Amino acid sequence: MRKEFRELASVEKAARVAEELAPERRVEEVPLVEAQGRVLAESVDSPVDVPGFDRSLMDGYALRAEDIYGADESEPVSLRVVGKVSAGESPDVRVGDGEAAVIATGAPIPEGADAVVPVERTSSGDGEVRVRTSLAPAENVMFAGSDIASGERALSAGTKMSQREIGLAAAVGAETVPVYARTRVAVVSTGDELVRPGGTLDEGQIHDVNTFSVAAAVEEAGGEAVVYDHVGDDYDEMLDVMRKAARDCELVLSSGSTSASDEDVVYRVIEEEGELILHGVALKPGRPTVFGRLDETPFVGLPGNPISALSVFRMFVSDMVRAAVGGEEPERRSTSATFASETRTEGGRKRILPVGLVEDGDGKTVTYSVDKGSGATTSLTRADGYVTVEPSTNYLDAGDEVVVSLFGGASPPELLGAGERDGFLNGLLEGRDARWLRLGSVEGVRRLRDGVADVAAVSSSPEEIEALGIEDARLVRGYERRVGYVGKPDEGAVFGVPPEGYGVRSRFDSEKPDAETRSFRSEGGAANAVEVGKVDAALVGEDTAQSDGFVPQGWISVDFLVSDGRRDKSGVRSFLEDAEEATGGGGYRLPDDVGEVIENWD
Amino acid sequence: MRKEFRELASVEKAARVAEELAPERRVEEVPLVEAQGRVLAESVDSPVDVPGFDRSLMDGYALRAEDIYGADESEPVSLRVVGKVSAGESPDVRVGDGEAAVIATGAPIPEGADAVVPVERTSSGDGEVRVRTSLAPAENVMFAGSDIASGERALSAGTKMSQREIGLAAAVGAETVPVYARTRVAVVSTGDELVRPGGTLDEGQIHDVNTFSVAAAVEEAGGEAVVYDHVGDDYDEMLDVMRKAARDCELVLSSGSTSASDEDVVYRVIEEEGELILHGVALKPGRPTVFGRLDETPFVGLPGNPISALSVFRMFVSDMVRAAVGGEEPERRSTSATFASETRTEGGRKRILPVGLVEDGDGKTVTYSVDKGSGATTSLTRADGYVTVEPSTNYLDAGDEVVVSLFGGASPPELLGAGERDGFLNGLLEGRDARWLRLGSVEGVRRLRDGVADVAAVSSSPEEIEALGIEDARLVRGYERRVGYVGKPDEGAVFGVPPEGYGVRSRFDSEKPDAETRSFRSEGGAANAVEVGKVDAALVGEDTAQSDGFVPQGWISVDFLVSDGRRDKSGVRSFLEDAEEATGGGGYRLPDDVGEVIENWD
Repeated sequence: MRKEFRELASVEKAARVAEELAPERRVEEVPLVEAQGRVLAESVDSPVDVPGFDRSLMDGYALRAEDIYGADESEPVSLRVVGKVSAGESPDVRVGDGEAAVIATGAPIPEGADAVVPVERTSSGDGEVRVRTSLAPAENVMFAGSDIASGERALSAGTKMSQREIGLAAAVGAETVPVYARTRVAVVSTGDELVRPGGTLDEGQIHDVNTFSVAAAVEEAGGEAVVYDHVGDDYDEMLDVMRKAARDCELVLSSGSTSASDEDVVYRVIEEEGELILHGVALKPGRPTVFGRLDETPFVGLPGNPISALSVFRMFVSDMVRAAVGGEEPERRSTSATFASETRTEGGRKRILPVGLVEDGDGKTVTYSVDKGSGATTSLTRADGYVTVEPSTNYLDAGDEVVVSLFGGASPPELLGAGERDGFLNGLLEGRDARWLRLGSVEGVRRLRDGVADVAAVSSSPEEIEALGIEDARLVRGYERRVGYVGKPDEGAVFGVPPEGYGVRSRFDSEKPDAETRSFRSEGGAANAVEVGKVDAALVGEDTAQSDGFVPQGWISVDFLVSDGRRDKSGVRSFLEDAEEATGGGGYRLPDDVGEVIENWD
Repeated sequence: MRKEFRELASVEKAARVAEELAPERRVEEVPLVEAQGRVLAESVDSPVDVPGFDRSLMDGYALRAEDIYGADESEPVSLRVVGKVSAGESPDVRVGDGEAAVIATGAPIPEGADAVVPVERTSSGDGEVRVRTSLAPAENVMFAGSDIASGERALSAGTKMSQREIGLAAAVGAETVPVYARTRVAVVSTGDELVRPGGTLDEGQIHDVNTFSVAAAVEEAGGEAVVYDHVGDDYDEMLDVMRKAARDCELVLSSGSTSASDEDVVYRVIEEEGELILHGVALKPGRPTVFGRLDETPFVGLPGNPISALSVFRMFVSDMVRAAVGGEEPERRSTSATFASETRTEGGRKRILPVGLVEDGDGKTVTYSVDKGSGATTSLTRADGYVTVEPSTNYLDAGDEVVVSLFGGASPPELLGAGERDGFLNGLLEGRDARWLRLGSVEGVRRLRDGVADVAAVSSSPEEIEALGIEDARLVRGYERRVGYVGKPDEGAVFGVPPEGYGVRSRFDSEKPDAETRSFRSEGGAANAVEVGKVDAALVGEDTAQSDGFVPQGWISVDFLVSDGRRDKSGVRSFLEDAEEATGGGGYRLPDDVGEVIENWD
């Protein structure tokens, strides 16, 4: 019998449960060379004076300041050189009246001397040194303990160790430092349909995504991810693996398999063998989230949809890990942004809205909705974080200020493109900090119009673009791609086509308005369908065709619609410059008027 | 004979040399679980359709949409349940007219069906399911290849792998990904006076700082630091170690020992056994920087002063490493900021000015100078980066916009304090993201007045504070510390004292205006001096005394001067709240009026 979550816990309650379940902090000593990024669990007080002796700050001569009182370029004072002190050695010389000793940077000041004159202000010969400047006592001397005195605090507990703190710890002689141990977090893979990357997929099987993305999120939060072998939906097998995980780790995570249906064994294992603390959160997505314990070890069951799993991890679990390892406060991992365009959010329940980020021309952060629960893994790399939307909110308006909870490693790309996408663009985008939303020409224009995209690659005419309500943008001549048929485009054939709004679809519709078609999400999908015999033929770009039997039909233009407000972004400029200089070939060519403005809406 | 650097290279020329010397990129395949933070060397195109089959997005029933046309709550349609499809299995059922099959989220859509109704919109019994809604064809179905089609680009070369990209790579079945290999960078320790942390210091010796801070900086830039055993200033020994480093690594770094004096063996090894490309840069500090090659392996010799070593690393070397590992562009590691107060910079040579960062009350970044070449290791943790100052600039004005090149791991602290520092404050600062400049009361007031500090801990009276020109600040009652004498404070004794401007120094000066004194950098330094017999006695706080023989003299106040503009910073608020609630004891007590405003300058 399927259970329903009749009593959903509030997000606030779930957050409290998560906080209570957070693993204990452990302390470990790590060698200084491994301390980077770790957080000090105890303060470090210096056991020694740093430096441990009065130290020269210059290469020069140690002397008595009173001996060279009044010396200058015109009236140098000569002193007898009575010895030499090198760095690292105890001085075997004493400096008396009218005397000086050669001294190296870092060497101890010999007895009797109280200042150091830099070698550049002297000349020497015949056992004497002529000093052409006067000095105050203590000049160019660093006194013992003046950097850090013995017993003084060098580093406070809670400090995150970077190159600088590591340097200071070395200075006080710390061979190791006490830091919070990395929490061991088990990531248990569930679901009969999951196959590890590298394995072969049978029908109905997919690759396991969440184990890898969640493990990476654990590591990013400062934990140590321990990945457990894939288990199917067998109760006893699952219990074995989860018991082992609970024994070896301080927190156990799973993803998917948490609804209350009879096949969801993770849920049953926790309910029957462990302690089920909370099941069901008033949050969409995230409703089936489970909090509990197995053999005293905290457990969180994340939803199965990849972007939901990372969002719920970010919302509840990453702080559990960060608290245990002394990591950063949550506010450091959020950013405020303005919403690019009106977005309906279906009120009634608290929602997690995955969003992407982009910088406008003034460097301000703009955000936009990227996924509405499709479960697509491609949404993962389009989302930089999420916005939490209250149940009373039915839509977000353009210009609304929101706080974006960031996924680890997320930041606005230097270029956000939309529209067509083909091999020419693939080449241009390599090595660039860019995100490109492949949506076809019409949706590309809309994303630019809505303040999301910097640039759109479009096969549309200026009139078609204008009809979509574009303003404050210009259309720049881009490139041309050769299209043609693959398969058997005979009379009565069934044609595979990409969705409406794609350049090649428009071309096809005008060439064969009455043909029977089957729609695919992309041109590549249509080409694949020809190859496996699902359809008879398709109109595709030459480099999409990839196989023999491409029958060229002509060229279609792909031009760049550029938002006026984003034209001066460095990512936009370098993209357009490179586009003008790209080599054609492989089914692409650059027209003579590449880079020229075709139309200007201002 | 000492050589001088008569022909200094410009910073621009040095940067070009560094770019030419950058190690080659290498590519390696790494398992997906180790890919986080790495940069893709080649694009990843999907070898498979994702998903590989038409997939249900819901738990529910697979059916033909046309069969339930017009169904709703009042007029449900009943269908015969002919089977069940679980996730991960190939369907063994066909859905015909008037039929439905139970289907799980992620399971393949059985033949004949074209949509999925969620279980929540149905009721079932007697082998039938009543459907209370109508559906469009394809509803709740994700078609094969609609996430990513076979051959489609999943990830572009140059992408930095985070949790999300790792998830997408898993989805297309990538067991490993091609990334740029971490460049192996040798860090060679030089200098007879250096002892590894953990070792015992003889006179004239200090702990080796740069090996550790530079190794951490290498790792932060994405390289793999290989630390070579300490070598003294022996030519043959140095040559052996550097040859080994050049053989094993792709870049060799040293710090210190790069001036042209006869003892600087690193310089001689490169000049005599390798290729000296550039020696001496028109930069202060950083003048003795060396670029060259040994046995074909690039070499850079960094200055010995710890903050200079990290600055020159940041200026020239980190980009060499980042270029090799595909790391971020330099602009990502800089921030713009306004200068807090006028700072003289001694024009005439291009300068590196180490600076700290702080956020003002509006979240804007403010910067200030922290070190003027003292060589103090404590400056390391006070500097967040540096500002490059042109030779023609003699001073930076308050409000000047500058670009700060950030050290790895640096960000503005949540609280920047200045002034007194003692055990009470040490306790308060633990676990806090704070920086505290121990400078004494007078300098603390000045730092706050100059727009640097958020809060100053001061033992000064309102009148003394006002005399320093304070505005827009309030003085809040803090705590009291018990002070007393250690040692033998007899008639004619020599007293150790901290510098002027410290609370305990003022107290001492008013108690014993005519006593003979010797000045130390801190109260702790003065206490240590008593212990080792350098002075006879000192007036110190009870917890500084640490030993027997503390003779209490009374209490001195430490109050908090708070800048009006910074009062609402969360770091300031939580600090002041915690200060009011701290327990006294151990030589400290809270007065009855703790937290009250004593004086208000607005």
